[in-house]
Amino acid sequence: MSNVDIEVALRRVGREVDALMEGAIPKSVGREGRLLDAMRYAALGGGKRLRPFLVVSSAELFGVARHRALRVAAAVEIVHCYSLIHDDLPCMDDDDLRRGRPTTHVQFDEATAVLAGDALLTLAFEVISHADTHELGEVRAELVHRLALASGGLGMAGGQMIDLLGERQRLEPAEIIRMEAMKTGALIAFSCEAGAILGRAASGARTALHGYAHDLGLAYQIIDDWLDIAGDPAVVGKRLHKDAHAGKATLIGVLGIDRAREHAEMLAGQAIRHLQPFGEEAALLRAVADFVVKRTA
Amino acid sequence: MSNVDIEVALRRVGREVDALMEGAIPKSVGREGRLLDAMRYAALGGGKRLRPFLVVSSAELFGVARHRALRVAAAVEIVHCYSLIHDDLPCMDDDDLRRGRPTTHVQFDEATAVLAGDALLTLAFEVISHADTHELGEVRAELVHRLALASGGLGMAGGQMIDLLGERQRLEPAEIIRMEAMKTGALIAFSCEAGAILGRAASGARTALHGYAHDLGLAYQIIDDWLDIAGDPAVVGKRLHKDAHAGKATLIGVLGIDRAREHAEMLAGQAIRHLQPFGEEAALLRAVADFVVKRTA
Repeated sequence: MSNVDIEVALRRVGREVDALMEGAIPKSVGREGRLLDAMRYAALGGGKRLRPFLVVSSAELFGVARHRALRVAAAVEIVHCYSLIHDDLPCMDDDDLRRGRPTTHVQFDEATAVLAGDALLTLAFEVISHADTHELGEVRAELVHRLALASGGLGMAGGQMIDLLGERQRLEPAEIIRMEAMKTGALIAFSCEAGAILGRAASGARTALHGYAHDLGLAYQIIDDWLDIAGDPAVVGKRLHKDAHAGKATLIGVLGIDRAREHAEMLAGQAIRHLQPFGEEAALLRAVADFVVKRTA
Repeated sequence: MSNVDIEVALRRVGREVDALMEGAIPKSVGREGRLLDAMRYAALGGGKRLRPFLVVSSAELFGVARHRALRVAAAVEIVHCYSLIHDDLPCMDDDDLRRGRPTTHVQFDEATAVLAGDALLTLAFEVISHADTHELGEVRAELVHRLALASGGLGMAGGQMIDLLGERQRLEPAEIIRMEAMKTGALIAFSCEAGAILGRAASGARTALHGYAHDLGLAYQIIDDWLDIAGDPAVVGKRLHKDAHAGKATLIGVLGIDRAREHAEMLAGQAIRHLQPFGEEAALLRAVADFVVKRTA
């Protein structure tokens, strides 16, 4: 599959997930409308929707109905969007531009942004636990549990903590890799795992997908850091050179910019090799691994 | 049951829930330890543990095993603690004292406090969705779903949004009641409902408990506002006169301090009448309604 096709496929999932998120965020009925507007602002109409794409594509491997996979895809993207709102706050990374638009606390205010993040995180669990996601409560509860583990103190939130501390303390390369696996990798891994949970896949398939997701997540983060240094600001849609400015610990700082990029490409190749057991069925997941290291935004 | 007995019963649930929360917050393994410490600081060793008590006491009505009810009790208290951390932030209510100690952002820093709230909210769903909470995935998924609804944009987070707007805009009495029902009432209602969900109670029992929780939640909030005006700061454990200072909309502002207190007592009596179908079994829930309007902290 060419890069053009994968972009078409990403956009299709993006539209489907946007429609689902739009429906899941309640309509204003009173003064809480400001909060719902902020949730909508942060969640809709932007982003690559990589995580939803991974959920949908991994679910396809196991013949899961698309409307079910899309609910989990929406939940993962909602968690991702909440994390962006909070990461951008003045007390965190203090960013004013995201996806080419003012960040939520700039567009609204800090209090509304904190609450919009909180309410989105909550909404993700509301969406995933609803009976429409899967007919078996067992499956819904497992999805909730794994998503919570991926997002919490030993997952995404813990990774963000280490990232912030990395501005003040020197992190060892192994700590940087662990931080990135927690901060970005855990939710990407869940996205792939979710398809297997929805499809009640055997443990061998789950392990293969986990290996794929682990390598893909690290490659993704290296390219993210690379774009912060070498990307085109008009294309990336957020302020660049922030990492260096904040003194953030990244793998590029350890490996240097060229070796880091080579390493990301090596990881993408390794991710693709994990997909061997799935044969041709995994064409989309292969294509996305390729896309992740070639992307410019 | 006398007030002394109810305080003993509250403390017992408090100890049990603390032990469970202590076990649920992961131990430090790396630099994310700072986040886990902040979660522990905010969650443990304080508070009346009213919500856990309501979960455990309502679950008892339906013969639910105590260790299961305690897991849901811990999840509800974790959600409550996360909301306190975020409500206390400088961009929200800007409080520096809570439960007689510095608030989390004062003890740590703002970024850590935001993340600790996020990670606690996530942890609540991790705890509740775990197989130890109930053998049926269906029941766990329903608990997740109802907790999410109670905490999100049309529940607690939405109520906090209206509360913040009430500092700048005049709210009608009906809007104040709705705001308080969302901000405090929804989680209190879930606490009572959770026992019924765990015990797979018939809808009649659920409706009765819902009526009880609705009246109790409003009475609780009125007394909370009353204590802010007339309480003893050494006993209450947080700064007082904050509502008037911030220009917050409260029912006391509408009804006046004496009529508001009478109204709270009337609501507590009404809450108790909802418990009639449960007979003597509901003694603890009756006692807690009485306690809520008599409390001094």
